[in-house]
Amino acid sequence: MKLAVRMADRAVGLTSPNPPVGVIIVKDGQILARGWTQKGGSPHAEIHAINQISKKAELSGSTLYSTLEPCSHRGKNLPCIDKIIKYKFKEVIISQKDKNPLVNGKGIKKLKSKGIKVILKDFNNNIKYTNNIFFNSLNRNKPYISLKIASTADGKIAMILKESNWITGKSSRMIGHYIRSKNDCMLVGRGTVESDNPSMDCRLAGLSDASPDIFILDSKLKLNPNYNIFKLKNRNVFIFHNRSLTGKIKKKYKKVLFIKTTNKDKLLDINKIISVISQKGYHRVLVEGGSELSTTLLKNDLVDKIYWFRASKVIGSEGLSAISNLNVNKMSLIKNFRLDNSKRIDNDILDIYSRG
Amino acid sequence: MKLAVRMADRAVGLTSPNPPVGVIIVKDGQILARGWTQKGGSPHAEIHAINQISKKAELSGSTLYSTLEPCSHRGKNLPCIDKIIKYKFKEVIISQKDKNPLVNGKGIKKLKSKGIKVILKDFNNNIKYTNNIFFNSLNRNKPYISLKIASTADGKIAMILKESNWITGKSSRMIGHYIRSKNDCMLVGRGTVESDNPSMDCRLAGLSDASPDIFILDSKLKLNPNYNIFKLKNRNVFIFHNRSLTGKIKKKYKKVLFIKTTNKDKLLDINKIISVISQKGYHRVLVEGGSELSTTLLKNDLVDKIYWFRASKVIGSEGLSAISNLNVNKMSLIKNFRLDNSKRIDNDILDIYSRG
Repeated sequence: MKLAVRMADRAVGLTSPNPPVGVIIVKDGQILARGWTQKGGSPHAEIHAINQISKKAELSGSTLYSTLEPCSHRGKNLPCIDKIIKYKFKEVIISQKDKNPLVNGKGIKKLKSKGIKVILKDFNNNIKYTNNIFFNSLNRNKPYISLKIASTADGKIAMILKESNWITGKSSRMIGHYIRSKNDCMLVGRGTVESDNPSMDCRLAGLSDASPDIFILDSKLKLNPNYNIFKLKNRNVFIFHNRSLTGKIKKKYKKVLFIKTTNKDKLLDINKIISVISQKGYHRVLVEGGSELSTTLLKNDLVDKIYWFRASKVIGSEGLSAISNLNVNKMSLIKNFRLDNSKRIDNDILDIYSRG
Repeated sequence: MKLAVRMADRAVGLTSPNPPVGVIIVKDGQILARGWTQKGGSPHAEIHAINQISKKAELSGSTLYSTLEPCSHRGKNLPCIDKIIKYKFKEVIISQKDKNPLVNGKGIKKLKSKGIKVILKDFNNNIKYTNNIFFNSLNRNKPYISLKIASTADGKIAMILKESNWITGKSSRMIGHYIRSKNDCMLVGRGTVESDNPSMDCRLAGLSDASPDIFILDSKLKLNPNYNIFKLKNRNVFIFHNRSLTGKIKKKYKKVLFIKTTNKDKLLDINKIISVISQKGYHRVLVEGGSELSTTLLKNDLVDKIYWFRASKVIGSEGLSAISNLNVNKMSLIKNFRLDNSKRIDNDILDIYSRG
């Protein structure tokens, strides 16, 4: 099962709207095949593993390990359990029941009814954490939101006068690209697009396909369509806005998908936006700033994880703070996190926090 | 020699105006005695070690390892080399020549003239770093200045509204007390005394004697003498000021030592202050804020080391920044440091930086 979890980890950030699942097929103490959910969710991990075996007769009598209950419903894909039954698996070992109401034990029940032995067991591994991200997003419209901050030691992300320059080192930036590949989509405000003109892609060798889809907040649809963020092929770019769409606007942005939403407190309603992103099947959202969007998310207690890269430099008050006004005007309102990990990266530090 | 360095490390922060030195005496492959510079510098490490041996005849023919050249001049103490000669040591092994102009090779020369074998060898250990702090302070009036900051993840040290509360955890604060014990003195501004009323002592079991002496900046001598900082016995408290001393003022502050200095840019001249501290024999200065003093030191490039404790909390713009205006208005002026070490302490992180 450990190996199956590793297969699932491979798929993280690539499988939306489906969850990342890992599968191992074993017969007579030998691994016949390994599988994981493929890009965009198809094929499922079970089918990906089964497809490794050309002579399907070999599958008869084998055991399938899966990090999540195999599906019993017909979605984009045919139900996985049908193949498990068809190829006469002897046994299916599962880490966790699928809390998707369309499955939720039905897969297990049907396998058992066909005489296949099913073991559902908590292996105490990280897969619950991975699966829960999917369940929360599916059942509560609450995707997992990660914030990436790259600052100086004193928490400044840029000069106030907007002089643009890298604060953290090259290795930190590479890890930043890897973090992108492990998320389903990114959310960014208009200000950051205008000031930094980021591509927000994954520029690691072999992982350019893993560049996440992009959601931009631009209430008045003012962004110039020539910014880099619109240039990358093979990914979807959405804009949240609150104005009426004209043919002229649609023509201005080629291939952009528009989502009209409403304001709250003079800004686009962040809770509604997050909920819409989840409904569209994105379970892991990465936010790399700017300061205003990070602050809005923290203020609304929407941040699940913070990747905080810190360079060994100090700017002082002429630097722009990573976080602005959180309405924390007394100590009891302070936002608490748990320190998950801390790593040295050349002359930078990466501190990883999760919800306290 | 490794063991001698460990002896020297024990003495760090306790020996001013003398440097912390470690000594090991060996005869026939056995350690006869270990010594280190005692509190306030007396006795020296050599004498401390020699005094362990009641029958001085045993010392004849032994080898003395010292982290620094034994002294040849008469200060508060008699010259160490006289005892080395008197007790007929065979050999003296030294890590580094003493760059104090009063010694600077004279000790080695005199030992050799008496037929004692002297080996001066760079053991590539930390002792150079320890000794150089002493040499810089003695020869350039530049003590080693450490800044201790305890902040949130976003670099805030308190609420702007001065609500007082610990930001970092209990273990971090204990390490903070240990850092105090390893410094000769502390420097603090009037504002911090007034807002936090700190004792600035070392409250670790067995180390209360290691509480450093205190230098306070209070140009107009306005501080109320009832603050905790004036209450601790067995240490010196100095106030830097720039007004005329009256009998009334002297009476107000019992036992405080006054140092009159001049202003520069409307503040007490920080370079002059640092230089005076060094001239008084203090080689390691710890500054724990506030924001204004930390900023002044950083702006003047006077900070050698930063101990930055970071709690896993976020305050945002209603928090008081650890560092204020450094006149860093472009990236090229940014203050660079080197990351020496980073440690997790419960739910906090301690990042240790030194001059870049």
